[in-house]
Amino acid sequence: MDAPPLHPDVAALAPLLGTWVGEGRGEYPTIETFDYREEITFGHAGKPFLAYTQRTRATDDGRSLHAESGYLRVPAPGRIELVLAHPTGVTEIDEGSLAEIDGVIAIDVASSTIGLTTTAKIVTVIERSFRVDGDVLAYTVRMSAVGQPLQHHLGATLHRR
Amino acid sequence: MDAPPLHPDVAALAPLLGTWVGEGRGEYPTIETFDYREEITFGHAGKPFLAYTQRTRATDDGRSLHAESGYLRVPAPGRIELVLAHPTGVTEIDEGSLAEIDGVIAIDVASSTIGLTTTAKIVTVIERSFRVDGDVLAYTVRMSAVGQPLQHHLGATLHRR
Repeated sequence: MDAPPLHPDVAALAPLLGTWVGEGRGEYPTIETFDYREEITFGHAGKPFLAYTQRTRATDDGRSLHAESGYLRVPAPGRIELVLAHPTGVTEIDEGSLAEIDGVIAIDVASSTIGLTTTAKIVTVIERSFRVDGDVLAYTVRMSAVGQPLQHHLGATLHRR
Repeated sequence: MDAPPLHPDVAALAPLLGTWVGEGRGEYPTIETFDYREEITFGHAGKPFLAYTQRTRATDDGRSLHAESGYLRVPAPGRIELVLAHPTGVTEIDEGSLAEIDGVIAIDVASSTIGLTTTAKIVTVIERSFRVDGDVLAYTVRMSAVGQPLQHHLGATLHRR
């Protein structure tokens, strides 16, 4: 398969393309704080979206923790949509802003629709921020879930591999 | 990375594991009927879910058409949950039955929650059926979208690669 050129609708996301590895920490009132290693890949197929996959492993023993997959869309300049599936039985649609400020890509989104399977834990709000500065990608996730107010849940810093 | 053993919760889905390739046809009142080539992969990481990715290309000129990704869960024997993201700005949670009848795996699900980004086309109901008989996987998708009643949209037959 030839690698097609990046679709112009997602040209502003070109700095995300590739594979990123790094470490993060998760915390929430209902669980013990945990450290994780993460790999994130953003790819494309010449269509007006990027494909996103993510996997985390526990820093202490390397066991698999979480995974996510989905897509990023840029419906208009400065706007971004995330369309995600979680193996925990959660789907997530986030919408928000995409900006470049002094060479740093800034993505700030909040959930507009969260879907839950019958057996999933209740997640009600997710907010995500990404900053991509050259070969460094940092993100945070805020979440309201299982009756807890919206608060910091995840933070990680990754480097381009 | 060592390949971990399949999690017992998803043992009934073992016949799906691997990569499948084949051809299908899509039709809907609002579009021209189209033929496609498809590759589907079901994988696992030792956790209680399978990861699912799918890609289709037009049979006539090989251009990329659709993609989907997500996860399959078996919350109880005989039950299955699909948690999917589409680059068209749609998330899909389907729930239904998982059975083995004369050696054929039968999965029949219907959407319980569909999420849409602000710019996505309106999809209101999705029903999916899969049949896995040895090295043959066949599926159909029924859909209600853009004001049309629930009806056949996709059908494909794939073979284990």
